[in-house]
Amino acid sequence: MAVVEVQIIPIGTAAPSLSSYVAGCVSVLKKYRHLTYQLTPMGTVIEGELNDILDVVREMHEVPFDNGAMRVVTTIRIDDRRDKQLTMNGKVESVTSKMEKDSR
Amino acid sequence: MAVVEVQIIPIGTAAPSLSSYVAGCVSVLKKYRHLTYQLTPMGTVIEGELNDILDVVREMHEVPFDNGAMRVVTTIRIDDRRDKQLTMNGKVESVTSKMEKDSR
Amino acid sequence: MAVVEVQIIPIGTAAPSLSSYVAGCVSVLKKYRHLTYQLTPMGTVIEGELNDILDVVREMHEVPFDNGAMRVVTTIRIDDRRDKQLTMNGKVESVTSKMEKDSR
Amino acid sequence: MAVVEVQIIPIGTAAPSLSSYVAGCVSVLKKYRHLTYQLTPMGTVIEGELNDILDVVREMHEVPFDNGAMRVVTTIRIDDRRDKQLTMNGKVESVTSKMEKDSR
Repeated sequence: MAVVEVQIIPIGTAAPSLSSYVAGCVSVLKKYRHLTYQLTPMGTVIEGELNDILDVVREMHEVPFDNGAMRVVTTIRIDDRRDKQLTMNGKVESVTSKMEKDSR
Repeated sequence: MAVVEVQIIPIGTAAPSLSSYVAGCVSVLKKYRHLTYQLTPMGTVIEGELNDILDVVREMHEVPFDNGAMRVVTTIRIDDRRDKQLTMNGKVESVTSKMEKDSR
Repeated sequence: MAVVEVQIIPIGTAAPSLSSYVAGCVSVLKKYRHLTYQLTPMGTVIEGELNDILDVVREMHEVPFDNGAMRVVTTIRIDDRRDKQLTMNGKVESVTSKMEKDSR
Repeated sequence: MAVVEVQIIPIGTAAPSLSSYVAGCVSVLKKYRHLTYQLTPMGTVIEGELNDILDVVREMHEVPFDNGAMRVVTTIRIDDRRDKQLTMNGKVESVTSKMEKDSR
């Protein structure tokens, strides 16, 4: 299992708001029930098998073109760990529990 | 106001776990009450005045060195919008409300 | 055609030097003669058909695991433009020619 | 010394071409003779003292706003190593020399 963050930016959209494009991209994820995802203020984080995630990200990347964009800049950040199971919640909890311990 | 995501990765840490380093970096933010932040599975998102945020990120970047790291790769992603107020919650809500409308 | 930058960082490598890992990743590209690539100080930039590039990047991402890493953070940045042919050289030349014009 | 890559993307620019905006950003660097930089197909890489670089990147980030953009997404990637001197050329040479050795 890997945790992957994706940020999709259509270029040349005339207006500075991108939320309708992003909504279209994220909607793709609803079809894939075996993937867990989470919206953050700067992107979408997806948890699952790496190849499955990359296939979905490839599909998400096409959505702004379907909605009229002529250029799209997509950033994919993969965190892939093989010695233990990596999950979105596990990653955040691991940091917050250490912060609590440190502040005692 | 800007929304900024920061990801700090110490290199050459011997063990694959980074959460104790990350906890140290994020702890810096507790001192700065005028900044709002949110932990995500792939980084820390901070909302506030851009120069204030960059000063804090500069301080966060030093923490792994203080804890023994010899090399640190830090990625800072700035979303800065001047025609309207950008907030972490506003960005996520804008996308989710459009997704709800689309699915009706 | 798309231009894609990839940065592959093995985590927990004991030593802060990553160049032997990176050399292994980039060597994968030599097998794929239809892709053009360029080493930069911060990653590898690849030009070609997007699906072809993503397949190769997927293969490059496995190399540090084969060489003993237990965790790998890979960042892929895709620049995909459909109204005109995007090339690595064309992108740089477009900027430098505008800088020359501006400085006249 | 650190090596830093910066990518500046104006949002809502009407046309998909960004080179005139990028040229304006990179021109800022000409004023700072103590910093070495290199244009890549995906950004600008700068070598120098980290605080100096971050000051210049902050100035570069303002340029698209001065040229009419209402929103700018800037990504800054810092590679900071303290056990030995990090340079742009040194990083690339270190990888290519290992690739040559491996292929013998």
